[in-house]
Amino acid sequence: MNNADFEALARVIMGRIFIPLEASGRHVHVTAEQARTLFGHGLTPKRPLSQPGQYLANERVTVMGPKGKFENVAVLGPERKEAQVEISLTDGRTLGVTPPIRPSGSVADSPGCILVGPNGQVGIRQGIIAAQRHIHMTPEDAAQMKVADKQVVKLQVYTSRPLVFEDVLVRVSPDFATFAHLDYDEANACGFASGDLGRIVT
Amino acid sequence: MNNADFEALARVIMGRIFIPLEASGRHVHVTAEQARTLFGHGLTPKRPLSQPGQYLANERVTVMGPKGKFENVAVLGPERKEAQVEISLTDGRTLGVTPPIRPSGSVADSPGCILVGPNGQVGIRQGIIAAQRHIHMTPEDAAQMKVADKQVVKLQVYTSRPLVFEDVLVRVSPDFATFAHLDYDEANACGFASGDLGRIVT
Repeated sequence: MNNADFEALARVIMGRIFIPLEASGRHVHVTAEQARTLFGHGLTPKRPLSQPGQYLANERVTVMGPKGKFENVAVLGPERKEAQVEISLTDGRTLGVTPPIRPSGSVADSPGCILVGPNGQVGIRQGIIAAQRHIHMTPEDAAQMKVADKQVVKLQVYTSRPLVFEDVLVRVSPDFATFAHLDYDEANACGFASGDLGRIVT
Repeated sequence: MNNADFEALARVIMGRIFIPLEASGRHVHVTAEQARTLFGHGLTPKRPLSQPGQYLANERVTVMGPKGKFENVAVLGPERKEAQVEISLTDGRTLGVTPPIRPSGSVADSPGCILVGPNGQVGIRQGIIAAQRHIHMTPEDAAQMKVADKQVVKLQVYTSRPLVFEDVLVRVSPDFATFAHLDYDEANACGFASGDLGRIVT
């Protein structure tokens, strides 16, 4: 085997054992109609994210809560059917809201806020959540790692402050790439650095 | 047994199995000389903390870093031989410093800052750390739980976002009360609420 073959083999073996970790900062999803109100047009891609088809938008918003606000917050595209504001519990203290811990898309009865863009503002009645820690997974990796969609697993993280997250939601879809997503409270609690890996343990 | 006896027995049994958790917010320790400069006098106790002899002071300071500051930060007494500023990694981003993860008292080559009080200000050359997660323990509880001073253990926390912290430092002293201390990144990552318990696991 040449070096490229070794690299490719190593990548396959690593992928059967380890899951790359990513930390998600606070961010916002909006509807197409909200994008038009906030920015005067739909979202435009600045750079792709690890999940296929998802992107960081050029557009940014201010998120205003009852107690405080965050300016210049990332907006992720493409547009969704319902607005969602993903923050950490730490962020919740700043805004003056208590986000429930929820899977993405599960926003019923969560706190609302005001989003302010360069072209206008939008009040959302609900949508602020702290994303439940989760693993996006391809069907192939799920079969390999013997887990199913919506299963809750333990994730050992090999980071500078190692720990085992116990309540990690697995989401399986052919539209996903395999990555574990933590929020910044979780990333800081485990001392995450870019490139760190995790592993599902029993 | 009467109700009080049952309560006492339950407390003893619980104490042999579980360790109460506490979240430590950002706080400052100062020397007697620094207290005089900052406040014009020594620290005065506002209320006792869980560790015997330790107290929250009436006095508060502003902590100024290269990028930001925190006002109205708690000062803990009694005074120490060396200043120490305990913050989370999240706080470090606000201040513009990267605190090393250290046991309390281990401040060599850590970042410095400026402390501002109502009577004056003090520049500290080093002292900003993120406290390594740790368990204060009485010698009796350490014997009961079969752990020794400076041992690193795994701590399962029974919280709303359960996890197992892997790098938890045990400190044993007859001057301690048995409590596990987390910073706010860790407390938020595990969904800590007042009264939550942990347990050393292998």
